[in-house]
Amino acid sequence: PFFLAVIFIVYAIVKLLLPKPSPPPPICNPAIKKESPKVADLVEIEDLAKEKISYCRCWRSSKFPYCDGTHNKHNETTGDNVGPLVLKRKEKE
Amino acid sequence: PFFLAVIFIVYAIVKLLLPKPSPPPPICNPAIKKESPKVADLVEIEDLAKEKISYCRCWRSSKFPYCDGTHNKHNETTGDNVGPLVLKRKEKE
Ligand code: FES
Ligand code: FES
Repeated sequence: PFFLAVIFIVYAIVKLLLPKPSPPPPICNPAIKKESPKVADLVEIEDLAKEKISYCRCWRSSKFPYCDGTHNKHNETTGDNVGPLVLKRKEKE
Repeated sequence: PFFLAVIFIVYAIVKLLLPKPSPPPPICNPAIKKESPKVADLVEIEDLAKEKISYCRCWRSSKFPYCDGTHNKHNETTGDNVGPLVLKRKEKE
């Protein structure tokens, strides 16, 4: 049992001294179209039907590529500060 | 030394059994305008001068809110798959 104890102690010390594996660098997109190597979206300006439309940049929207407000929850949960890109037509005078 | 060994062993076992603290949830934006609670950008469609312009959704562009291609490096480094939102006018016929 003494040798066993020594082995445990050595193991514990080695484990404590070894550097922790660094966490993977943060990704933007946890879930959207992960089968695609690059998710780019094309908007044809003439096709925009609405006066104002928001596009998601937090990659958490359930209506991606549109913003559905989920960035607020994401910002609260993670301390992040992201928001959408808003396309807007000027007010007609 | 035997008691010491026991203490060490107990410590090692407890440490191994305790759940690891989960890493913080990933944020999208490591560096852009962190003083702002929410980075939203407004594009007035009539002001778009170019036929085609790309907006960054990876939050790594040095020309944010425009895309400068940095998403490619980000995707390679992290295994992510993000890309820009591209605004385009239709070809004139
Ligand atoms: S839901 Fe993603 S930016 Fe609003
Ligand atoms: S540089 Fe960010 S999407 Fe291209």
